[in-house]
Formats: sequence, structure tokens, C-alpha cells
Amino acid sequence: MIIDILPHLNQRRIVLASQSPRRREILQLIGLEFDSQASSFAEDLDKSSFESPNAYAQKTAEEKALDVWRKQNQAVHLVIGSDTIVVSDGKILEKPKSEADAIQMLSNLSGRWHTVVTAVALVCEGRVQSFCEEAKVCFDDLTDEMISAYVKTGEPMDKAGAYGIQGSGGAFVKKIDGCFFCVMGLPMNAVGREIRKLVEDGVL
Amino acid sequence: MIIDILPHLNQRRIVLASQSPRRREILQLIGLEFDSQASSFAEDLDKSSFESPNAYAQKTAEEKALDVWRKQNQAVHLVIGSDTIVVSDGKILEKPKSEADAIQMLSNLSGRWHTVVTAVALVCEGRVQSFCEEAKVCFDDLTDEMISAYVKTGEPMDKAGAYGIQGSGGAFVKKIDGCFFCVMGLPMNAVGREIRKLVEDGVL
Repeated sequence: MIIDILPHLNQRRIVLASQSPRRREILQLIGLEFDSQASSFAEDLDKSSFESPNAYAQKTAEEKALDVWRKQNQAVHLVIGSDTIVVSDGKILEKPKSEADAIQMLSNLSGRWHTVVTAVALVCEGRVQSFCEEAKVCFDDLTDEMISAYVKTGEPMDKAGAYGIQGSGGAFVKKIDGCFFCVMGLPMNAVGREIRKLVEDGVL
Repeated sequence: MIIDILPHLNQRRIVLASQSPRRREILQLIGLEFDSQASSFAEDLDKSSFESPNAYAQKTAEEKALDVWRKQNQAVHLVIGSDTIVVSDGKILEKPKSEADAIQMLSNLSGRWHTVVTAVALVCEGRVQSFCEEAKVCFDDLTDEMISAYVKTGEPMDKAGAYGIQGSGGAFVKKIDGCFFCVMGLPMNAVGREIRKLVEDGVL
């Protein structure tokens, strides 16, 4: 929570390294004033070179934030980068390569829990620090007819894990266990907590 | 999930008994076509006459849905009503009566779990059926300064429980355990499940 230190923070130049409307909306809810700029980091790190899905997401968030920090000629006080991934059975689910691939992913998620991880990287005075927030998501039992109808909408094709919780795929979700806003793409409470630490440490 | 039976459902006249933008958004996500009309039910039931907070919310949702069903001259196939309440220590938290009341409620919620209940009532062929969905919400530790700054924004004053998860109060929330969309005001998965039953029973 940073609501009590917003007058201080809003004298700082803060940039969100994302053009995601949902992430912008979440950061606006906190009350922060900020600009946003998309990172041009390719997001092509070799997943197999990381010891865990979380480590991969964390590194991707760092690269996104650092890319924007460099583009801003370092003339900002804080850059916030993030990356959200879907993990099932310890594996990162990417965007489906085909409709058949989407059907397979959704069949895999049906009737069970998986994990959504959002990594956040904060760049302040050229130093990057990052963390992961997780939430578990429980899918309802899906019939072949439901999966087929959903895939036909086209929604799964550009979504990691082949569903969007903020789209009609949200109806698959019975419950979550963890941070609400992590699932939406930016863990509001944790971001506030880490920004507060930077202020308390005197670097922001 | 009703995505596979939308062609059938979208030949029915469906009315959402709410003008809440968030509820409309959730129902649109499911893919349903519907109109919305605010209920004029006073929401003044005597809470002490119910055996539980859930029973109170359920009755309120029913009254809202029935009110709209009557206003529509019963010329609709389905009316969906709902009511969301915040429950802590078994008591329903209302809208705060004053800033001091808001401060007290937020102090009470600080650093612990409470419950958000959304009751849903479906009116179909003049018969009403209803159910409750619950989600537990865990608040971060709040300092007096945070609470004071939040109350000064005015946001808590028209919110049950003195916070809005869809406002800057969302930053208080560390995690939830339960239905994501229940906390947002309409449990998407459960609504789909109950609508499907009505179709399978041949009444919708």
C-alpha cells in the first residue's frame, strides 16, 4: 500500500513498461501517476536454460523493464516491467500454435488447478530488482463441445495457456487461490509493497 | 459454461436486474445477449430476521430479480438478479455511516480474512431459484496513515465494508480464496452452470 505516500511518489517520473490496458488500469487504481511505453524486448529467452518457470518470467520482466529504462535515456525515477505466464505440471504453456494445440491445452487444464505467475521488475537508479507473485486457478470440467465452441471464437489463439480470464474464458474458472490482480496481470498489493520499500530505502 | 449453447440462449429474452457496469461486463464476457434494467427494490430487508448473512443476500437478490420480472410484464425468458455483501466475524458490513465508521471497519479488516458473498437469483417462467457463491479475501496489514489516506479519497463511503476491490482499495487485498468473479459482483462460472441446468430442464 502506497496510498499514504502518493504525494511523494507523484513527484517522481514513473514509467510502466507495458501497453496492456489491463495493467495500466490496475496501476491507475493504486493512484500512481505514470507514463507507459511498450518494451521492444523480443521475449525469446530459452526457457530450458532456467531452473524454473518463475525464473524465466522474472528474467523476461527484468529485460522488458531495462529496455524501457534505456529508451527513456535513464531520465526516469522508476520503470515497472512485468510478465505473466501460465504454468501447468511445471511447464510453461505458450500461445497455442494451432487450433488442435489449443484444444489439447484446454483439455489439459480441464477440471484441475494450474498456476498463473506474474513477475514484476522495478528499475530504480539503474538497479533492477524483481519478484514473482503466484495464484492458483481451478478450471471447471470442460466438455469437448465447450472447448470446441471456445476455440472457434478465436480468443485462445493469442493467449498463453489458450484462455483469457478477462475474456469469455473467465467462465471456465471456478475459483482462484492467491492474488486477484496477479491473475489480471499486475499484483497490485505486492507492487505497492516493493515500491514502498524503495521509498523507505531512500532510493525513490 | 454455456459457450456451446449460446446460439440457443441468444434466442431468449434475458434481462440483468442491475445497472452495475461491472456486472454487465461480466455477463457480456460469457457471450450472452441481454438487456439490463435496474431494480427498484429498496434493499431494506431486516437483516436480523435471517438465519445467516447468505440468506439475507439471497432474499435480496430474489426480490431484485422478481421486481424486474414484474416490470417487464413477465415477457422475458430469464431475469438475473444479484446482491453482493461483505461479511466479517459473521456480521454483514454495510456502507459506513461516517468517516469514523469507515476507519473502524477498515481497522477491523486489516491483516485478516473476511468473506465476500454474491447471491444470484434466476427468474424463469415465474419461478425463482437462487444460490450463493463465496470468496474469502485477505487484507494486508494497514497502518493508520494508510487508512486515513484512503478514507480521505471518499471511495469507502458508498461501499459495503468501506472498500472497493475495483478501486484503489484493491491494493489492500493480498489474496483471495474462491471465485474471482464473485468478488467482482457476479460469479461467472456458477451463473453459467445454473443457466445450463435451466436449459437442460427444458424451461429456458
